[in-house]
Amino acid sequence: MDIFEKLIKNLGPIGRHSDRAHEYFAFPKLEGELSNRMLFRGKEKIVWSLNNYLGLANHPEVRKTDAEAAARYGLAYPMGARMMSGNSDYHNQLERELSAFVKKEDTVLFNYGYQGIMSAIDALCSRRDVVVYDAESHACIMDGLRLHPGHRYVFKHNDAEDCEKQLKRATEMIKTTGGGILVITEGVFGMAGDQGILKEIAALKQRYAFRLLVDDAHGFGTMGATGAGAGEEQGVQDQIDLYFSTFAKSMASIGGFMSGDKAIITYLRYNIRSQIFAKSLPMAIVIGNLKRLELLRSHPELKETLWDKVRKLQEGLRERGFNIGKTNSPVTPVYMSGTVPEATAMAADLRENYDIFCSIVVYPVIPKGQIIYRLTPTAAHTDEDIELTLNAFSEARKKLDAKVYDVAEIPVV
Amino acid sequence: MDIFEKLIKNLGPIGRHSDRAHEYFAFPKLEGELSNRMLFRGKEKIVWSLNNYLGLANHPEVRKTDAEAAARYGLAYPMGARMMSGNSDYHNQLERELSAFVKKEDTVLFNYGYQGIMSAIDALCSRRDVVVYDAESHACIMDGLRLHPGHRYVFKHNDAEDCEKQLKRATEMIKTTGGGILVITEGVFGMAGDQGILKEIAALKQRYAFRLLVDDAHGFGTMGATGAGAGEEQGVQDQIDLYFSTFAKSMASIGGFMSGDKAIITYLRYNIRSQIFAKSLPMAIVIGNLKRLELLRSHPELKETLWDKVRKLQEGLRERGFNIGKTNSPVTPVYMSGTVPEATAMAADLRENYDIFCSIVVYPVIPKGQIIYRLTPTAAHTDEDIELTLNAFSEARKKLDAKVYDVAEIPVV
Repeated sequence: MDIFEKLIKNLGPIGRHSDRAHEYFAFPKLEGELSNRMLFRGKEKIVWSLNNYLGLANHPEVRKTDAEAAARYGLAYPMGARMMSGNSDYHNQLERELSAFVKKEDTVLFNYGYQGIMSAIDALCSRRDVVVYDAESHACIMDGLRLHPGHRYVFKHNDAEDCEKQLKRATEMIKTTGGGILVITEGVFGMAGDQGILKEIAALKQRYAFRLLVDDAHGFGTMGATGAGAGEEQGVQDQIDLYFSTFAKSMASIGGFMSGDKAIITYLRYNIRSQIFAKSLPMAIVIGNLKRLELLRSHPELKETLWDKVRKLQEGLRERGFNIGKTNSPVTPVYMSGTVPEATAMAADLRENYDIFCSIVVYPVIPKGQIIYRLTPTAAHTDEDIELTLNAFSEARKKLDAKVYDVAEIPVV
Repeated sequence: MDIFEKLIKNLGPIGRHSDRAHEYFAFPKLEGELSNRMLFRGKEKIVWSLNNYLGLANHPEVRKTDAEAAARYGLAYPMGARMMSGNSDYHNQLERELSAFVKKEDTVLFNYGYQGIMSAIDALCSRRDVVVYDAESHACIMDGLRLHPGHRYVFKHNDAEDCEKQLKRATEMIKTTGGGILVITEGVFGMAGDQGILKEIAALKQRYAFRLLVDDAHGFGTMGATGAGAGEEQGVQDQIDLYFSTFAKSMASIGGFMSGDKAIITYLRYNIRSQIFAKSLPMAIVIGNLKRLELLRSHPELKETLWDKVRKLQEGLRERGFNIGKTNSPVTPVYMSGTVPEATAMAADLRENYDIFCSIVVYPVIPKGQIIYRLTPTAAHTDEDIELTLNAFSEARKKLDAKVYDVAEIPVV
């Protein structure tokens, strides 16, 4: 049979709605300056869909640095893979400053976060090694694990008891294979907003021999006294053997990095396929990231403002009886009951009639059946944004309860 | 055992030389403007290591556009995955213009080439499908294949007979599995510079049912009457079902794209994990790519200049008796005989005493034992650069023959 045939007959869980949902629920265009308010279809909306936690995306100093760096170097610079012809003093400097910030000996930059951590897992694990990982790990971790030819044992999300059970199995297994154990979890889970149980996992090091890799994409810049992430927040940063973050969230950029002891970082620097065989992170982006990191260090009030908004939004939702689950980070999910058409009708109503733009998360990002309205408060949001949003959600819920949204089709207007 | 222990004891084929080779043979810093001449350790060198084929990296109009786009949008814009909150008119426009340029119905942009094609292969192939691929495919294709849970049959590099043999096997296999066949090869192989046998593979479509995916990273912009790549060069562009290129070579940028029929591109747009779950290609880079594509279309003399330099360099090397293999593209390998220490000593001599900077390619990029000096001529090179380089290579070979380079250690100066 034609390999394309079955694919184009079934465009997937989101793709099959593409005729009606394209550029509305999927691939929407947010226009105007990156901020709390942006244009959607020409009209201003309060936007809750950007991981611009600290508001750095449009910070005047960031914009100035981005503009100057691009003017100075263009966006082609440097040409080539870091190892071949794409290295620079700025790349080295960003690695040093990140190491100091997350309190690790050394750091390797990635040209992109997704392929960076994916190839790092690939480079770390041989057939003999066993990976023990959280069930709700991000797609980039799952894709890294899919490259792993050895055993992998999944533990129930944030379940320390099950984590220990899998560590026991892994410890037995490596007696046969002669390999080692890598535990992988996240600092903050991006869908539900709950922190990974880093402290509990770190405590297991007393009884089991393993290394801990933490993907702190949502924790970097938002968690911990200095913003060094969920490990700092939980007082176990020194127990994290490999600390990973993307630059795509708090840092409002692209690329990523991994930090740890000098020896293992040297190994990674020389052995990560997606970095050896692909172009280096552009210079203007490296320089832009240096500025973002500087602001992150020198302006703790950005994180304070973020958390002020987080508390107001989350307390407001809880007070009004919304279920926001177990979040203990800025990520704010609102779990709804109701059918998918109801949920999408409500989302459209919020957008069109209340000017609230938030993303609906559905399968395959989360398990089938669940629907989450995910709100991402940032330092750029105002108290008025929060008040208007809380009121809109309350009104929308009344309509939901009154079956106003009980329609068969996604009402794309 | 500790999972890190074995890794840091063996830093890999290149990493084990890191003490001496770091920032010299590996991770060198090329400084100053991106051009035919750049600074290495403070001294001007003729540089042959950049895939800046058309010289667009530092073209005044490119630099102007890059600077203006970054000033207008910053480097954070847009925030979020394309599907969630990272779409824009410019992203759509670039997809339309690329479709027209490579003569396909539709195009999907990738935030990065490596993870783009990797996840595309993943999205295209199920357990039932069989992939038939060229043995010398790039690392990003190999990593994509490693995600494929079904059968994969490799054919000897550019061997049409073996390709047919594997297609026969695949055709038998899918009778059992009920899947389809995807053939993957490259337009231009980046190490040896030989074009993929696209015409021969396309001819096999008469007798076997399969789809053809071509990675034309080095062919896009350099090959074919209009620069549309190796498919155009060989007159079989319409037989390529999925055309892929990175922006990291001729386009002097980052990101990538895949083009094909509208239905299959729609499927890919909605189902590629590295795109659904990671941030969109930055706006400034999209706008920069629109300018690069415009120049590529409107300035055919850039490609003519490139090929003038390619011919002069390759003819000069051949006339002097150097083995440059089967290249029929700008990629210019110089195959040397001699030990690894000899080859690296020669490379250091070329750098230090002749001011010629070229990359040495060794394992794991190419098979163990081989050493290739890879020269990448570009439209930015001059006839003088070529003359100086040819003379330097001739003199260095005399020293090689006289065993001057017969030293035990890599002579990092």
